[in-house]
Amino acid sequence: MGPFRQPKLYYVNNWPSVKIFGDDTLIIYDRIFDQIPSARAWIRAFPACYAVKSGENLKDIDLFPGHIKAIERVTRKLSSRKLKIVVLGGGSVGDFGGFVASVFKRGVELIHFPSTWLAAFDSSHGGKTALNVSGVKNQIGTFYPATQVYMVKSLLTSQPPERSFEALGELIKMGLLAGGDLYSKMNRVSAFNSKALWRLLPLVVRAKYRIVNKDPREQTGERQVLNFGHTLGHIFEAHFALPHGVAVLAGIQFSLEWSYQRQLLSQKEYLNLMRAKFWKKAVDKKMSSTWKHLNMLALLGEAPRTYMGYLQQDKKKSGVRMLGFVFLKKPGAPTVINVDFKEILAEISRQSSFWG
Amino acid sequence: MGPFRQPKLYYVNNWPSVKIFGDDTLIIYDRIFDQIPSARAWIRAFPACYAVKSGENLKDIDLFPGHIKAIERVTRKLSSRKLKIVVLGGGSVGDFGGFVASVFKRGVELIHFPSTWLAAFDSSHGGKTALNVSGVKNQIGTFYPATQVYMVKSLLTSQPPERSFEALGELIKMGLLAGGDLYSKMNRVSAFNSKALWRLLPLVVRAKYRIVNKDPREQTGERQVLNFGHTLGHIFEAHFALPHGVAVLAGIQFSLEWSYQRQLLSQKEYLNLMRAKFWKKAVDKKMSSTWKHLNMLALLGEAPRTYMGYLQQDKKKSGVRMLGFVFLKKPGAPTVINVDFKEILAEISRQSSFWG
Repeated sequence: MGPFRQPKLYYVNNWPSVKIFGDDTLIIYDRIFDQIPSARAWIRAFPACYAVKSGENLKDIDLFPGHIKAIERVTRKLSSRKLKIVVLGGGSVGDFGGFVASVFKRGVELIHFPSTWLAAFDSSHGGKTALNVSGVKNQIGTFYPATQVYMVKSLLTSQPPERSFEALGELIKMGLLAGGDLYSKMNRVSAFNSKALWRLLPLVVRAKYRIVNKDPREQTGERQVLNFGHTLGHIFEAHFALPHGVAVLAGIQFSLEWSYQRQLLSQKEYLNLMRAKFWKKAVDKKMSSTWKHLNMLALLGEAPRTYMGYLQQDKKKSGVRMLGFVFLKKPGAPTVINVDFKEILAEISRQSSFWG
Repeated sequence: MGPFRQPKLYYVNNWPSVKIFGDDTLIIYDRIFDQIPSARAWIRAFPACYAVKSGENLKDIDLFPGHIKAIERVTRKLSSRKLKIVVLGGGSVGDFGGFVASVFKRGVELIHFPSTWLAAFDSSHGGKTALNVSGVKNQIGTFYPATQVYMVKSLLTSQPPERSFEALGELIKMGLLAGGDLYSKMNRVSAFNSKALWRLLPLVVRAKYRIVNKDPREQTGERQVLNFGHTLGHIFEAHFALPHGVAVLAGIQFSLEWSYQRQLLSQKEYLNLMRAKFWKKAVDKKMSSTWKHLNMLALLGEAPRTYMGYLQQDKKKSGVRMLGFVFLKKPGAPTVINVDFKEILAEISRQSSFWG
């Protein structure tokens, strides 16, 4: 479907004026902002508003007809030709709002205001939108990049610290995939606090677009490296109800172990990576209790058929029992190798005894 | 979203082998073909099949979750990376199946087999997919061109003659928009029978792509000329429950009258057009009774607020009470002019007294 048009990226200290979005704009927003007076006032200034409750339930296809009928009602007075949709929220709100924008009136302009670090680092960039079908995540969706993404410092830094932890999986993933400046800056961070996250944000976002622009619609396979840590990460997330960021960190560690085992990663690089400071800092303070529960043995010690079931659901399957697994040769040098499900199960078993 | 990739067009005498579509293909088809043994055998050879009942009800957003869950079930054994969707049916099945292909797994390959002349001439080309929301047509949808469109002679010519009449509105529309070779061939046709339609088909399809390729996503306005005859046509279709083709013919006549009235169309061109042979041939034989009922006075004699209601729903509205109306300067030379709803109502009133 042709080249990917990268959105205009704005890094701003505060909410921009609502006026710049014109008279025919709908805002779809996480209803949690109705409880924050300054945000509420900003939202109410839009010509049309639609509040949603964030979470995977928002993405359930069964609820979509109700949402779209309500959105059709609240936008009836706006010009459908000039309609824009501003989306304010985290991952689920972005996935949902992006999908709505991509299909409403056959596609209207989309502007993202990610409200969580995870959305700002990852999900609001790259154009993926999604709904869930019969409980299976992201079974339908579109590739539909926003035209503008606003990263608002006051919004992002006002989040409780435990929410920033969720983003660290994607941040560390991008640091390992990109290498170079981002990797060394990430390694030198004294703590992953708001200040550090805001400083790293443009580097992470730029690294993501560098990959996405090569393969915006996941056709060439180049975008597949973004799945680093996610094959096992998704399983951990679903089966153990772990936060996404934590599950991805565990998935990355699984991949690094396997990369070393397959001699893709040299002993020197492996040891450097294992001793890198960011792991400890990622699980600092309040979050260390969550990390302590992340006993790899517990994660990996499940019956093989549990994993097999999840692997078969994995939408990345390239054949019936194969998938492209992302290994790391060194920071900045990922590689995708097609592996059989059996190989994954064998490696799970190997690592499980290793952690035991 | 970048350039439009025109599908490969195949004009073939008979159904191609199902094998060429591979092992991971779903066919979404009009269930009427289950009653035709040869078609049924062809359909059953696909790795996965999903039968639908054609009609606008198929496009109702309320029924979409049920459809997509069933489609997810029947395709679970196929590779989602290689999945293709073949769509066999007329306009509503094409709109529905195209939409499914555009969002399922974030978009899979789409192959159209239009089974009606109307779909073969018009709706299977140009990439528009659509569902209806709260009874309003095509409120959601995507621009998602097929990769291949198969025009199968034995399929199209096996339709009952009254079905071919439905396509004549779009055929005559394209003849007037394109002018040149298509217009003169259309004028010289001795009867709009299957043989003539099959011969004209490639010319009409080529003329449509010439317009669509300039403006695949309706962004520049160049594609808007395809709306010729449709502003009033859609109203006639909805309010009087006329077949689409008949309603468009009446809408075209309204536009020609208005074009002449506004001196966009010279008296000479107007008289040539009014006396052109294709009008009579389009309403030949079995269909002449339908056309006789098309008393323009009856169509135009409704209360102005009836029209106003429909105009306000029209998705082409460019402002609150304006729309781009397609006039004709001569065959091959349409022009789009923004007109106020009031001007349309005044012209309806003028033509209504004229026909009385």
